Amino acid sequence: MTKSATPAYQAQQWWHTDIIDMRPGEIRYRGYPIEELIGNVGFADMVWLMTRGELPNRPQAALLETALMSAVDHGPQAPSIAIARMAMTCGGSLNNAMASAVNVLDDVHGGAGEQAVELYQSILEYQAGGYTLEIAVQEGITTWQRERTKIIPGFGHRFHPVDPRGPRLLQLVEEAAERGEVAGHFVAIAREIERQLIAMKGKPIPLNIDGATAVIYAELGFPAPLARGLFCLSRSVGILAHAWEQQCQGGRNKGPLPKGWLWPYAGPAPRPVPPRA
Amino acid sequence: MTKSATPAYQAQQWWHTDIIDMRPGEIRYRGYPIEELIGNVGFADMVWLMTRGELPNRPQAALLETALMSAVDHGPQAPSIAIARMAMTCGGSLNNAMASAVNVLDDVHGGAGEQAVELYQSILEYQAGGYTLEIAVQEGITTWQRERTKIIPGFGHRFHPVDPRGPRLLQLVEEAAERGEVAGHFVAIAREIERQLIAMKGKPIPLNIDGATAVIYAELGFPAPLARGLFCLSRSVGILAHAWEQQCQGGRNKGPLPKGWLWPYAGPAPRPVPPRA
Amino acid sequence: MTKSATPAYQAQQWWHTDIIDMRPGEIRYRGYPIEELIGNVGFADMVWLMTRGELPNRPQAALLETALMSAVDHGPQAPSIAIARMAMTCGGSLNNAMASAVNVLDDVHGGAGEQAVELYQSILEYQAGGYTLEIAVQEGITTWQRERTKIIPGFGHRFHPVDPRGPRLLQLVEEAAERGEVAGHFVAIAREIERQLIAMKGKPIPLNIDGATAVIYAELGFPAPLARGLFCLSRSVGILAHAWEQQCQGGRNKGPLPKGWLWPYAGPAPRPVPPRA
Amino acid sequence: MTKSATPAYQAQQWWHTDIIDMRPGEIRYRGYPIEELIGNVGFADMVWLMTRGELPNRPQAALLETALMSAVDHGPQAPSIAIARMAMTCGGSLNNAMASAVNVLDDVHGGAGEQAVELYQSILEYQAGGYTLEIAVQEGITTWQRERTKIIPGFGHRFHPVDPRGPRLLQLVEEAAERGEVAGHFVAIAREIERQLIAMKGKPIPLNIDGATAVIYAELGFPAPLARGLFCLSRSVGILAHAWEQQCQGGRNKGPLPKGWLWPYAGPAPRPVPPRA
Repeated sequence: MTKSATPAYQAQQWWHTDIIDMRPGEIRYRGYPIEELIGNVGFADMVWLMTRGELPNRPQAALLETALMSAVDHGPQAPSIAIARMAMTCGGSLNNAMASAVNVLDDVHGGAGEQAVELYQSILEYQAGGYTLEIAVQEGITTWQRERTKIIPGFGHRFHPVDPRGPRLLQLVEEAAERGEVAGHFVAIAREIERQLIAMKGKPIPLNIDGATAVIYAELGFPAPLARGLFCLSRSVGILAHAWEQQCQGGRNKGPLPKGWLWPYAGPAPRPVPPRA
Repeated sequence: MTKSATPAYQAQQWWHTDIIDMRPGEIRYRGYPIEELIGNVGFADMVWLMTRGELPNRPQAALLETALMSAVDHGPQAPSIAIARMAMTCGGSLNNAMASAVNVLDDVHGGAGEQAVELYQSILEYQAGGYTLEIAVQEGITTWQRERTKIIPGFGHRFHPVDPRGPRLLQLVEEAAERGEVAGHFVAIAREIERQLIAMKGKPIPLNIDGATAVIYAELGFPAPLARGLFCLSRSVGILAHAWEQQCQGGRNKGPLPKGWLWPYAGPAPRPVPPRA
Repeated sequence: MTKSATPAYQAQQWWHTDIIDMRPGEIRYRGYPIEELIGNVGFADMVWLMTRGELPNRPQAALLETALMSAVDHGPQAPSIAIARMAMTCGGSLNNAMASAVNVLDDVHGGAGEQAVELYQSILEYQAGGYTLEIAVQEGITTWQRERTKIIPGFGHRFHPVDPRGPRLLQLVEEAAERGEVAGHFVAIAREIERQLIAMKGKPIPLNIDGATAVIYAELGFPAPLARGLFCLSRSVGILAHAWEQQCQGGRNKGPLPKGWLWPYAGPAPRPVPPRA
Repeated sequence: MTKSATPAYQAQQWWHTDIIDMRPGEIRYRGYPIEELIGNVGFADMVWLMTRGELPNRPQAALLETALMSAVDHGPQAPSIAIARMAMTCGGSLNNAMASAVNVLDDVHGGAGEQAVELYQSILEYQAGGYTLEIAVQEGITTWQRERTKIIPGFGHRFHPVDPRGPRLLQLVEEAAERGEVAGHFVAIAREIERQLIAMKGKPIPLNIDGATAVIYAELGFPAPLARGLFCLSRSVGILAHAWEQQCQGGRNKGPLPKGWLWPYAGPAPRPVPPRA
């Protein structure tokens, strides 16, 4: 029996990875020894290396870092943040509160960035097929609304008439494009979507944080699902901060409303338990 | 009824925070407008601002960033990483896999850093009370083992005879102390613990990643529970990378062993269901 | 300002429910006082009352109970069970282990029951439109494979040539149908799917536990998403039992393979960290 | 190399269990074939078999079932229930909502039952050592408050002056004790604790649901940690029912307060981002 056919080899192979190599006293990520990475690369570099396989150049790392730092928190009315705070009063540790909260960064709460990258990429494909930017965006929006949903991911906000993060992030991407650090295709697409949405709706449906960070992730070449994953990393910071603040404030079994408040009940009127058939 | 006595105010007050202020079109963290933070501060700065209330200076941010980037992953034999990979084959999204995995960064798997900060701080208190470093460390270890557990948190590794991250991280902290960026009390404490453990055990029980990052967190003034929270942020990167790699590899319902392998059963022998009393 | 227009009322209304009504000293579920329910209704009755709004009759409760008890566990090679056991060695409590495990009962691992109910219901609609059972099943399978996926949910097993739970559960449903306790439409549909799959594949693709419990849930009138929710309740029992057994066995940071085993690394060869552009 | 020394055997052994045995076409729990269990034992029997190793007799199963059905829900002001409802509006599935919610059934929210069993058992040990019930309870309370916390687990409620579940559950246990189905030691202990707390506090600190179900779990011989695990099973029913009701109600990103409500911010006043040292 050759080594590769042994059950032991097969069991180990079941967990094979391209990310990390280890021997006693030695740890390498993507081939780089950890003791050389420490002190030489930053946290955003490490996020890139781990998810992409190579180190980014400095402008790439700077843009990634900007996307990560810009989406950390949107306050305790966001379900994820409220959940982190409530969880922290139930007796678990910060890791438990972070888990319950990150878990809800799903399609509706944390998935718009992933969807926006998909939309942007579909539009770039129309352009690659020979369409002008304007027509490609029209096709992209029409197809999205027909095949996915009426909601254009990454645009519009229920609270902010203009999300202050959107314009600032786009400006930074455009500056990077002018310096040749990114191609700038996706920022142009986002601008054109915004322009067409104004025409369609008769009012601004401005780029929101998911749409703006999706521009960065798309410019940097991240696959769409990682836009969600990176948002989870980013929002984990706000989740941690609020969980910790709640721990410092104290409290036990924090409900959504102050203690003593009750909800209205709209079910069947009081009734006795009947005999059973 | 004054405004502060209204039920509506009380309901809002139930969610009061010092972290984030929001009005339509405006978001401020700790008083700083988001559009000024974007492009001017990094991700580690933001982690610090959100959890501590003020921005760090650049050396502080650099050390925090180093701690965060150094603990991202320890491979698929770690329960958190294995869970992330298994979760990803069950049909959920990256946020779900990250949640199930971060959740297990609890006392045993992710809590050693928090415990190490507590140990280091207790030793510094002995020093503040007039003990020499050597005696303070003796007292700290003795008290910890009497009141908590025999395991000295942050020291020893079941796999690495020397964890390559430990010496490199301590070196960076000592350099920062020489430049006056941190006080250096905790790196001295960690060195002395290591020295005494050799004497106690007759062999090196080297500083591990939890003990080393705990030195940084303690030098930077983070409260002990945040050492666990920051580890969760850090390890979330490895969790994300492995979950994503697994998604790219494909697979459905990935168990711990290759398909077709069975576990040994050691319970009661086959038996019929008895009639019930 | 009328009472219903006050902010306080609106805040309470935000959490309105038809499930539970409470006053100090009084708790009613769906109108029934808890002290009358206690001692008079069983756990499965309560599951039904909470999710459906009314109490089941005894035969309905018996069938629900059978579905719940039959799917509790499929051993530690199932990702959910392995995760529960690994989680338990990381320092958290049973609730944390249960959470990380239930979380992965998603589309692939726990969603087949929900999908099977959808498939069965679509076939019943074809029958309601005048098709024979045979043609309705053909249409149902064809449409499912065209619009959803090639995999027919609830049929086939990677391990069991015949899942011993399937025939026994169908037999019980058929006996209930003969007694007039359920209509029996869905058990007939499942039998016909099984028959056609043999013809299509040239070998048995037998009903599995998801497909069999889906027959029961459909016969009892549960909406499809609850088939997944009820499976989570059921599998939570196995998750709890394995987490507890692991706690009794002890162990710290249980990885997927025995301690000391390593995974094969297939990424870039060892390389130094390069200077950065 | 003997079979037991092969790496393959060791890998399988890593996952050994006494709970479930499987071969193709065959599943046994604790030795019982699944097809014999189906139709012959109920859901509570299965919970007992899986966690304890043997089938309960009918009175034992009935008491367990009563404990499980009595604690399913305490309304949307409970953090677990609110989290389940909020999670459901973020785009995940029922399993994800259940996970985020069960996760917070930790020491404070779901751990009182476990603690109450520990307290009761410590009192029974004092009795076994020769103390009268009265003295044993005094010792138990004093020791608990000295070594653990001032809060006597299982007694008192912030909302109900008398928890309607407590008296009814104790009554059922006493009836079971009169029939010789349980010993009745723990119901007597709970009654005496209640009596002494009135004397200590000058007002009733009545038995709550955690304390009452803990009496049942203790009478039935469950180890203390399983009281928490069984509570998780029980409360999962309410969590599921509320998550499902929320899904039927619809909504996106449900925060703790109605849309448009804001929290008060009490952090630093608006300020510009400073230059960095």
